[in-house]
Amino acid sequence: MRVLGVDPGLTRCGVGVVDGGPGGRCKLVHVEVVRTPPDADIGARLLALDLAFTAAIAQYRPDVVAVERVFSQHNVRTVMGTAQAGAVALTAAARAGVRVALHTPSEVKAAVTGNGRADKAQVTTMVTRLLKLTERPKPADAADALALAICHCWRTPMQTKMQEQIALAQRAQGVKR
Amino acid sequence: MRVLGVDPGLTRCGVGVVDGGPGGRCKLVHVEVVRTPPDADIGARLLALDLAFTAAIAQYRPDVVAVERVFSQHNVRTVMGTAQAGAVALTAAARAGVRVALHTPSEVKAAVTGNGRADKAQVTTMVTRLLKLTERPKPADAADALALAICHCWRTPMQTKMQEQIALAQRAQGVKR
Repeated sequence: MRVLGVDPGLTRCGVGVVDGGPGGRCKLVHVEVVRTPPDADIGARLLALDLAFTAAIAQYRPDVVAVERVFSQHNVRTVMGTAQAGAVALTAAARAGVRVALHTPSEVKAAVTGNGRADKAQVTTMVTRLLKLTERPKPADAADALALAICHCWRTPMQTKMQEQIALAQRAQGVKR
Repeated sequence: MRVLGVDPGLTRCGVGVVDGGPGGRCKLVHVEVVRTPPDADIGARLLALDLAFTAAIAQYRPDVVAVERVFSQHNVRTVMGTAQAGAVALTAAARAGVRVALHTPSEVKAAVTGNGRADKAQVTTMVTRLLKLTERPKPADAADALALAICHCWRTPMQTKMQEQIALAQRAQGVKR
């Protein structure tokens, strides 16, 4: 499974592509950080992101685009930018006929470090190790996008397995939902 | 000036087109409410909005697309949907080469009712009166989209005038910004 992870942001937006192989091995395919100038028109900034996502999806043909699920308990301005950039990524994926998935920051941290409250440095360290990279991906947005993609590769088989187990148990008990 | 106003929302999104004439007269060109099913995939919902905005922009060829500026002090879930739908509208406008503008809900209410804290019924009443409509636009999202477009028609000449006055005053004083 190939996953394109997006750490959404207006000023810096991380885009990371990872191949999830058998046995949980993940492999780096591509990573980039798309930037838009803070003083540019909001329409132009979102369009620049749209073009970058569309180009990356066309080039790397992911099976899934995984985007960070945004919560609004943080700084108002940042959250709006994150929600806007994320929406553009989701729309670009749907336009290309690619499935989308959302993961919360704590799900991503838990998936790659085992701790849902891990800090940025720890996430970067684990992404570097898991993908066997020779250098730490920089800036943090690049590492976060890769962490999102890894998280998706790992969570999905688990979720599918759990759903299968639940379905089996329900069938055994004659329970209908 | 022709303005396409967008009251952004995932479940119901108001789209209203208004022509602003000389002397502040505004004329209704088009109004619709785009709906997407709450149980559909988020990518599919945003793509449906993107297609609707793109079609409306192509058909009515506005000079400006005016979108509600979102604040996050309200309900988290609603705000996220509003930010996402708004981002898709801004991107669709930029892609079509149309200028974008943002107005806050209180700017819109103040523009059409004279009161920044007016309720929805009052906004609908004034939109109906200002556009000389025979029926009240329904649902409220339709009226809000038209109010946004009217607000833009009225605020822009005022802002331009103010900026001209400021520029003149600065030139007179030899002030350079």
